[in-house]
Amino acid sequence: MNDDTAQDSQPWAWPEAEWRRRVQQVRAGRSLRPESWPRGNRCAVALSFDSDHDTNELRDGGRSIGRMSWGQYGNRVGVPRILALLKRSGIPATFFVPAVSALLYPEEQVRVIAEGHEIGLHGWIHELNSVLPAATERELHLRSADALTRVTGVRPVGMRTPSWDFSPATLAIQREMQLVYDSSLMADDDPYELLQDGEPTGIVELPVEWIRDDAVYFNMNRFQALRPYTPPAAVLDIFRREFDRAYEERGLFLLTMHPHVIGYRSRMFILEELIGHMRSRPGVWFATHRDVALHAKAQME
Amino acid sequence: MNDDTAQDSQPWAWPEAEWRRRVQQVRAGRSLRPESWPRGNRCAVALSFDSDHDTNELRDGGRSIGRMSWGQYGNRVGVPRILALLKRSGIPATFFVPAVSALLYPEEQVRVIAEGHEIGLHGWIHELNSVLPAATERELHLRSADALTRVTGVRPVGMRTPSWDFSPATLAIQREMQLVYDSSLMADDDPYELLQDGEPTGIVELPVEWIRDDAVYFNMNRFQALRPYTPPAAVLDIFRREFDRAYEERGLFLLTMHPHVIGYRSRMFILEELIGHMRSRPGVWFATHRDVALHAKAQME
Amino acid sequence: MNDDTAQDSQPWAWPEAEWRRRVQQVRAGRSLRPESWPRGNRCAVALSFDSDHDTNELRDGGRSIGRMSWGQYGNRVGVPRILALLKRSGIPATFFVPAVSALLYPEEQVRVIAEGHEIGLHGWIHELNSVLPAATERELHLRSADALTRVTGVRPVGMRTPSWDFSPATLAIQREMQLVYDSSLMADDDPYELLQDGEPTGIVELPVEWIRDDAVYFNMNRFQALRPYTPPAAVLDIFRREFDRAYEERGLFLLTMHPHVIGYRSRMFILEELIGHMRSRPGVWFATHRDVALHAKAQME
Amino acid sequence: MNDDTAQDSQPWAWPEAEWRRRVQQVRAGRSLRPESWPRGNRCAVALSFDSDHDTNELRDGGRSIGRMSWGQYGNRVGVPRILALLKRSGIPATFFVPAVSALLYPEEQVRVIAEGHEIGLHGWIHELNSVLPAATERELHLRSADALTRVTGVRPVGMRTPSWDFSPATLAIQREMQLVYDSSLMADDDPYELLQDGEPTGIVELPVEWIRDDAVYFNMNRFQALRPYTPPAAVLDIFRREFDRAYEERGLFLLTMHPHVIGYRSRMFILEELIGHMRSRPGVWFATHRDVALHAKAQME
Repeated sequence: MNDDTAQDSQPWAWPEAEWRRRVQQVRAGRSLRPESWPRGNRCAVALSFDSDHDTNELRDGGRSIGRMSWGQYGNRVGVPRILALLKRSGIPATFFVPAVSALLYPEEQVRVIAEGHEIGLHGWIHELNSVLPAATERELHLRSADALTRVTGVRPVGMRTPSWDFSPATLAIQREMQLVYDSSLMADDDPYELLQDGEPTGIVELPVEWIRDDAVYFNMNRFQALRPYTPPAAVLDIFRREFDRAYEERGLFLLTMHPHVIGYRSRMFILEELIGHMRSRPGVWFATHRDVALHAKAQME
Repeated sequence: MNDDTAQDSQPWAWPEAEWRRRVQQVRAGRSLRPESWPRGNRCAVALSFDSDHDTNELRDGGRSIGRMSWGQYGNRVGVPRILALLKRSGIPATFFVPAVSALLYPEEQVRVIAEGHEIGLHGWIHELNSVLPAATERELHLRSADALTRVTGVRPVGMRTPSWDFSPATLAIQREMQLVYDSSLMADDDPYELLQDGEPTGIVELPVEWIRDDAVYFNMNRFQALRPYTPPAAVLDIFRREFDRAYEERGLFLLTMHPHVIGYRSRMFILEELIGHMRSRPGVWFATHRDVALHAKAQME
Repeated sequence: MNDDTAQDSQPWAWPEAEWRRRVQQVRAGRSLRPESWPRGNRCAVALSFDSDHDTNELRDGGRSIGRMSWGQYGNRVGVPRILALLKRSGIPATFFVPAVSALLYPEEQVRVIAEGHEIGLHGWIHELNSVLPAATERELHLRSADALTRVTGVRPVGMRTPSWDFSPATLAIQREMQLVYDSSLMADDDPYELLQDGEPTGIVELPVEWIRDDAVYFNMNRFQALRPYTPPAAVLDIFRREFDRAYEERGLFLLTMHPHVIGYRSRMFILEELIGHMRSRPGVWFATHRDVALHAKAQME
Repeated sequence: MNDDTAQDSQPWAWPEAEWRRRVQQVRAGRSLRPESWPRGNRCAVALSFDSDHDTNELRDGGRSIGRMSWGQYGNRVGVPRILALLKRSGIPATFFVPAVSALLYPEEQVRVIAEGHEIGLHGWIHELNSVLPAATERELHLRSADALTRVTGVRPVGMRTPSWDFSPATLAIQREMQLVYDSSLMADDDPYELLQDGEPTGIVELPVEWIRDDAVYFNMNRFQALRPYTPPAAVLDIFRREFDRAYEERGLFLLTMHPHVIGYRSRMFILEELIGHMRSRPGVWFATHRDVALHAKAQME
């Protein structure tokens, strides 16, 4: 795999084996959309929150005081608002937390677990896996799992790669760590089994999509003149449409959010109204990613 | 034409012959909007789907596992949803397929043909023609035509250049291949004949436009903070307005979509409602690009 | 002025005379919003169309066949649609035409003049003035004025700099050419007199704004993944608000459009509905830029 | 702190002390959201206008005549419209003014003060603090305070760093200047005390957010093809939602605007309707940033 760069410049000249090899590294295998969801529910909803906080800025070099204050907002304002809403609604969720974030804010993680939610892996300091040597990536994932376990008392069983940057080394590391699931890829709307070089791995993929991610619509770049913004009401409309079809197809609706993005006064209504809408429909199973993955994994047998 | 680069830096200093030469390379000739459409219809609708799948990422070097999983979504979820809708609506369409995409997913292409649709050329691996030597471009188009023919049993008669990147060499290659039509340029709303250096070529142009392309509104860039997004309801509004005027003017409504863009749970309603709207009007001829081009070509006589 | 670059790197260290000098080069002087508009009208409307056509691509090096076909759309489809609407509505307008565009499409210019509209200067090949030596800029403006006069039989009296790129040399050239007006700057909503180094020049500025420009909302970049788009209905809303306040303030509503931008089936309704709205209000004077500038200039006496 | 750059390249390899040190430089301390607002009001509203005018362009090198004319619009049209609206509504506000802007337009500042508003610090020429040596940053802030005092007769007690670019040196300088408040950071919706390396400073932070900034939605980049734009009605909706929740939570609603952004005919309705909406609710305290900060500071005792 070390020769990839040399060959990158003229993909139209690759032999067939080369493009087949690249595509086959990690592929979607059989669908794990279950015949039925637990307790006769017709649809599953898995809400996740990536508690990146200050690590977005630290990952980029940690020089901007302003961006670190924005990160602190996630801990100080975003997570409490989200936890209050989840409690009010009686809904469990999953928080993917970089280890540095967990170490900066251990009480937040303890509270998340105490209130019945799941905490999953999300890298060490929100690093990009695809620019790291495989050994460094492996060491950081292992170290992160230990740190999260130390902070929360619970060993994580799933991973969302930071920035959904799944490297050619990631899947082997996840298998070595005996994780139940990954949630970083997007070959389907519903759960599926990951294949490595064509072979089934037993790892469940809970697919993400930029469509179902709050940051896509709201993030902006500080020193660029261009700072577009999708109207919040349009974002609610998109999320609702994704749910409505998942409900219709008896599938999974998985939504990625961020405390420092959704947690603002002008945005929380999106999540509130979406939850209200979903709870108004009969037969919706709200579950952590772990529980969805375990149910999907049971389809493998 | 090899001296173009040397002269590019000061276009205001070009002699008149130079800018005239550049403009004249490929031009719109006579309009081929017919007096009437087949069977007395007043308007033609040509829907197309560019089945790029993994080739978008392979073309860029094939290193991102995530983007390749997104490509697989096109085959696994997007195309089946689209084919089901087309069958339900009784509408033929055209799929432009890079050869590598066809070789990765031959069964998809066989089904597309079996269900009465057309498959057209779309490059080898979604390469950009304008950065290739003319001989390489030619070899890739010829090889792609052979590959598509081998997979589907039908020789393609039309081409949509990948990324609509029509090079100074493209038109001569299309003539050598005896294609009926190209669908990559945008000098009109309605079909026209292509001129090469001022001379009629007999090649029909079925014009595209970024306005009538789903990717323009929904694509995002993974590692940029800026990820704008046009609300789906606004996209439906734009497509409907394009159709309504085409209907009024008794012209052609041609729409470019992508299985990995339009095929999502929150976006399929755009195509569904658009089709519903178009079918509610009397006198709309739904046809493949090939059939539209053949009817337009008949105007030449 | 040749030393500007050397000093650009640390503006906070400039002596007061330096930033004052830069700001004073070209400034807004007295307002030329008249006491009243001709024939007792309470508001003026000046519509303009920049007929750039192929020059946008030629200016950038003239290598993309696709972008040149887009340019041809402006001549082939955009201008005819616009002229038909203006005739139907009985409204005069101003077309700013790069000389190369006029030479490529002389019949278009002849028709524009024949139908009672104005043609103004818009550079030679849509070059950026601020990257040219002053002598080159001057030579191109003079040559463009001669070319437009030769094609149309009428000598232009106003200039819109291409891309509104008004260089430190532009104003002196406009004075030498004895132009009545410029329309490239934005220090006000209503007409004003231009000052050069603090001195009145007699040149009328008819101010533009990106807010009142169709391309701002609709343009896209071909090879960037990001291609945002403001919904057309929102653009109509913005233009209408600009007009409504101009009407209320008894001022000028000046709108910049482009045949290859506004001239599409899904966009012409913006201009149609805007004209309908403006014509429904009593006391609106529709005029060419020249006539507005002459009326404003009369305020100087 | 001079070694930061050397270590920036591999944040995942930093020792724990390093990322803790960076995060701790400037942090949010205790909340200063008061038990109650003055005179029994339940919510505070602090409107601010950054009167950058020509300094945006001067800061970037001062070469574009067009952008400087846009800056002049802020003084010539934007500020007068805003002052008229504030007077009509009986609302005080805060204007953050770069010293060069104050020196270019002293009469504007005198009028702002005479009409009962506050003027705060906003850098010398809108420079970016984070690219300056600490000594240069300090000298510019001190010089700016003197210039503003000379122009207006009132010494500023608060600072908004230009572009909200708060450097590692900024807080110490603010303490040396004995400022009451800063308004450049974003760790909360409501006022809080700033900590420096973990120690309370007595400085009040009145937090900003890109969500509550007009420029984010409307700015565009002149020479990029991409120029997105959020519909003004959507911006009003966002601001209203921010206010409504602040009202509900009995907190602070702080809004950053710019005379050369909000001051246009098609945008002033946003501010007008927002003010109308806020004034229709009982118990809203409209105050300058200074008065809000002094009230918040009283919570420290």
